[in-house]
Amino acid sequence: MTRLYLDWNATTPLRPEARAAMIAAMEVVGNPSSVHAEGRAAKALMERSRAKIEAALGAEGADVVFTSGATEAAALACAGRGLACAAVEHDAVAAWCSTGLPVDGQGGVTVSDPGRSALQLANSETGVLQDLPQGLAVSDLTQAFGKVPFAFNWLGCDMGLISAHKLGGPKGIGALVVRQGIEVPAQLKGGGQEMGRRAGTENLIGIAGFAAAAEAAQRDLAAGIWEGVAQIRNILESELSAATKETISVGNGSPRLPNTLCLIAPGWKGETQVMAMDLAGFAVSAGSACSSGKVRASRVLTAMGFDEALAAQAIRVSIGPGVTKDDVQRFAKAWTAAYAKARTRAV
Amino acid sequence: MTRLYLDWNATTPLRPEARAAMIAAMEVVGNPSSVHAEGRAAKALMERSRAKIEAALGAEGADVVFTSGATEAAALACAGRGLACAAVEHDAVAAWCSTGLPVDGQGGVTVSDPGRSALQLANSETGVLQDLPQGLAVSDLTQAFGKVPFAFNWLGCDMGLISAHKLGGPKGIGALVVRQGIEVPAQLKGGGQEMGRRAGTENLIGIAGFAAAAEAAQRDLAAGIWEGVAQIRNILESELSAATKETISVGNGSPRLPNTLCLIAPGWKGETQVMAMDLAGFAVSAGSACSSGKVRASRVLTAMGFDEALAAQAIRVSIGPGVTKDDVQRFAKAWTAAYAKARTRAV
Repeated sequence: MTRLYLDWNATTPLRPEARAAMIAAMEVVGNPSSVHAEGRAAKALMERSRAKIEAALGAEGADVVFTSGATEAAALACAGRGLACAAVEHDAVAAWCSTGLPVDGQGGVTVSDPGRSALQLANSETGVLQDLPQGLAVSDLTQAFGKVPFAFNWLGCDMGLISAHKLGGPKGIGALVVRQGIEVPAQLKGGGQEMGRRAGTENLIGIAGFAAAAEAAQRDLAAGIWEGVAQIRNILESELSAATKETISVGNGSPRLPNTLCLIAPGWKGETQVMAMDLAGFAVSAGSACSSGKVRASRVLTAMGFDEALAAQAIRVSIGPGVTKDDVQRFAKAWTAAYAKARTRAV
Repeated sequence: MTRLYLDWNATTPLRPEARAAMIAAMEVVGNPSSVHAEGRAAKALMERSRAKIEAALGAEGADVVFTSGATEAAALACAGRGLACAAVEHDAVAAWCSTGLPVDGQGGVTVSDPGRSALQLANSETGVLQDLPQGLAVSDLTQAFGKVPFAFNWLGCDMGLISAHKLGGPKGIGALVVRQGIEVPAQLKGGGQEMGRRAGTENLIGIAGFAAAAEAAQRDLAAGIWEGVAQIRNILESELSAATKETISVGNGSPRLPNTLCLIAPGWKGETQVMAMDLAGFAVSAGSACSSGKVRASRVLTAMGFDEALAAQAIRVSIGPGVTKDDVQRFAKAWTAAYAKARTRAV
């Protein structure tokens, strides 16, 4: 039986458009900072890519500062600024903020001082979407970009974090998006790249892949691909929820990403679920990939009011275009059977 | 006439081995931090790549911490440590150090307190090689790695900086190499990647390309390829030096990289040389790519005692395997003719 990858929020398969753009970029010899023809060709590819990303993100006129990913973008946006956030933020944001903003049982966050706060547009574990207040300092757009329609220029936030590998681009490239007029002092020094905001020779092949993926993602989104994904996710949700009366579909009272399902299966540890499903041929997750390996309750779920025990019994299934109804039904069948077995053992 | 790329110290063409490894890595779906089979496959590719780089660098037992390039590695190694360096260091190192270490007229640097100093193994502009003192805190190995034989474990330094795109790998991936037992606090936070030393999903495709390039570079080096490159460079050096009695081949009294020639052509600005040669079909440089665009004298050359005027009249020609005697003779002819013309104008 072929394996089924259902962990798209951890990372996505590379889109064919990104693959082709990266292979083409491999032929570009120059350093974008060199003034000769080879350097100018590299620079032109980089700037074309930047413009594509701005267009896909609705960020025309804003500055896209390329980084090694959303984690570096988060450090650039948040470090040393004394921002507040909620405990549902990704560790890469939370590491630089105080995490006291209140979270309700459906994952909604209340922001009191937007200009001194960071708030994600979508949560990686639950898919819960936030209404961003005007004047927000920083928003982590990583999971939302390419999956739900929005324009950076209409969000009303000063800075946004994006990452290529969550929308079909390569790992290791992302960007900080900065509204015009906002100052961002460089953290990496020793070169004038990225308008003095980030030193270091740019990841040109990755940038080309990011741009192609963003463009393709935006095209898919406009074509309504993700509405179909939401229908498949909803089928999965009803089938898994039917397993027992105790299962909890986390955050399903909130608007959510179309592809994400976070389900608590009381009595069955998330880690064990992931391992059982892996053996059965399915890749799913028990939290964000970045914190996997650490056996602990999800901070996102405890922030939503679930106790430690329940928060450690969640599984995240995240799908993407191309995952079919048959696929999720096959998963639901395997998961339901394994859950029944786990409950029998527990009795 | 086909263009000739003679700016290998700025960045190198991608090696076919790196290209193939990157295309293969595009098929790897998982996030190296995920615990399922897809994640483990990604992690295995990353660890195989790390081992290849350690072997190529003679750094078995040391830790290779992947970064977005040598600039990030320099920040990780140097920021906040109060190290001393010489003004010949790359900006990415010098940005974090006091630059008072003495430099002689041949580019040699005297280190008084190795444990609190950074010293490059090779200079990017002149190719001058340094004798590293035992117990050195940090060495920038970027230009030397793959061009001259050395083993990290025998250098006697605590940390080394390396970059893929200087030895035929892709831009945007590098590493900090750390002797065992040396502590390196993370600067990017919010994930446990790279043994807690650098958060963020790893640039897997770039890492695979880096490893393949490093392995191929090491194989070429062992096969004596760079001795042939040195011969071609020496031909270039004598032909250019013959243009007038006033030309100065910078640092040629020191051991140098086999591929680098830094030549001062009195009366002819480096910037103008680069543009004239670009129009004639040759890509060369007037300093490090990272500082290009800024019209100023080379800090490396003023540190060696050249006055501002001479330091602004230098050109760097850096070649690689595959550049032939005919190629450099073609360049020498064009350069000599253009220099003669420039001198006529000046008179």
